[in-house]
Amino acid sequence: MTYCVAMNLCEGLVFVSDSRTNAGVDHIATFRKLYVFGTPGERLVVLQTAGNLATSQAVVSLLRQRLHSEQANLLSVPTLFDVARLVGETLREVSEHDASAAGSGIDLSCSFLVGGQIAGEAPGLYNVYPQGNFIGATPDTPYFQIGESKYGKPILDRALRYESSLEQALRCALISFDSTIRSNLSVGMPLDLLVYRKDSLQVPTGYRVAEGDPYFEGVRQQWCSGLRALLMELPSAPESYLS
Amino acid sequence: MTYCVAMNLCEGLVFVSDSRTNAGVDHIATFRKLYVFGTPGERLVVLQTAGNLATSQAVVSLLRQRLHSEQANLLSVPTLFDVARLVGETLREVSEHDASAAGSGIDLSCSFLVGGQIAGEAPGLYNVYPQGNFIGATPDTPYFQIGESKYGKPILDRALRYESSLEQALRCALISFDSTIRSNLSVGMPLDLLVYRKDSLQVPTGYRVAEGDPYFEGVRQQWCSGLRALLMELPSAPESYLS
Repeated sequence: MTYCVAMNLCEGLVFVSDSRTNAGVDHIATFRKLYVFGTPGERLVVLQTAGNLATSQAVVSLLRQRLHSEQANLLSVPTLFDVARLVGETLREVSEHDASAAGSGIDLSCSFLVGGQIAGEAPGLYNVYPQGNFIGATPDTPYFQIGESKYGKPILDRALRYESSLEQALRCALISFDSTIRSNLSVGMPLDLLVYRKDSLQVPTGYRVAEGDPYFEGVRQQWCSGLRALLMELPSAPESYLS
Repeated sequence: MTYCVAMNLCEGLVFVSDSRTNAGVDHIATFRKLYVFGTPGERLVVLQTAGNLATSQAVVSLLRQRLHSEQANLLSVPTLFDVARLVGETLREVSEHDASAAGSGIDLSCSFLVGGQIAGEAPGLYNVYPQGNFIGATPDTPYFQIGESKYGKPILDRALRYESSLEQALRCALISFDSTIRSNLSVGMPLDLLVYRKDSLQVPTGYRVAEGDPYFEGVRQQWCSGLRALLMELPSAPESYLS
């Protein structure tokens, strides 16, 4: 499995992905699931993937191969909506190409998060389904998750708002990953993250949080001990609860 | 869906269940999923169910009908292991009875948590699978969940220990339910809970936490504001994370 989260907030965009892939518990590997494309000053396009690795790699490979071709590509289409549509169409192309193998009982589907900004537009974030159609984030629902999303959802629902600062949102995302990694073996370190400040039109390289990263380790420990303290501080249950 | 959690701890047992059932989002109802059987001074047997409601109700109805018969029943079998086996066998009986309907694409399976104590034994807790076989909780893994379990798992993994007091464990369970209810519509109030102190051999009636219950509402609010404060207190991410 995999876990990816992306946020479209008033200050900009935040993306975090894990890097574990598994085909059974004895076939675990590390693969990057966050891809960055862009032209400084003109556009940033970030892709995150979850699901079948062969499918998602094929989609990204085709998108990359076509960057320097005449046909519509990630760096040439005029809007981020068109970028999401291109990702969805390429996903359909790969799914159709591999359809004859899909009867084998293996799930070949995958999904994408597509975010970024193109000069002249506001930043955008789309969740591209395995069918190739997609929805966009809004201030009401400013984040999307793909992959193993349930463990890390409560903290996002409790603490993340469209108005959250990028730095606060990043911390919230890191806690969401910590919760997921502790409870599910199929999501693992290192984490790839990228923070984009609205209208900067820069193409950040992002940052890889490795196992033992001092800041992340500190946050994990402080969060865990803080949660336990919070639980101890809650008032005792009334007698009626215990009888 | 449903969410149930049960804990077998050094001081005794804790059970919490939600009461929402749904067959599609426009067919939502309230059904109790926590059942108590027992003979004061001799045994307590608690059942919790998740999955197909017709199947789980049939299993509980058969178990209840047979309480006053000559055949082996929840109040007559000598050990809690035998109780779990009886629940598993009754589940298989119902599954076989309804097998001809199972081709309709409806999932008829359900699972049970079975906990309690019989005089002369330590308290026990079993997770009975849809196939009717089961595993028992141990001090290493002192809790089981059935149903919509992922949202509420991180707080249990972080804060619950075999040595936790019953009252602490109950608070931990309530937070686990709060996280689940906030993030998933298929789990809902009221909650049914039961706390059993080891070796008391009493048959507690348990307590129903209704919507608006002052203690639970207070805990939910304090937890939510405490979490947000905890997130704000975390150190800011280093520059390398944001570049």
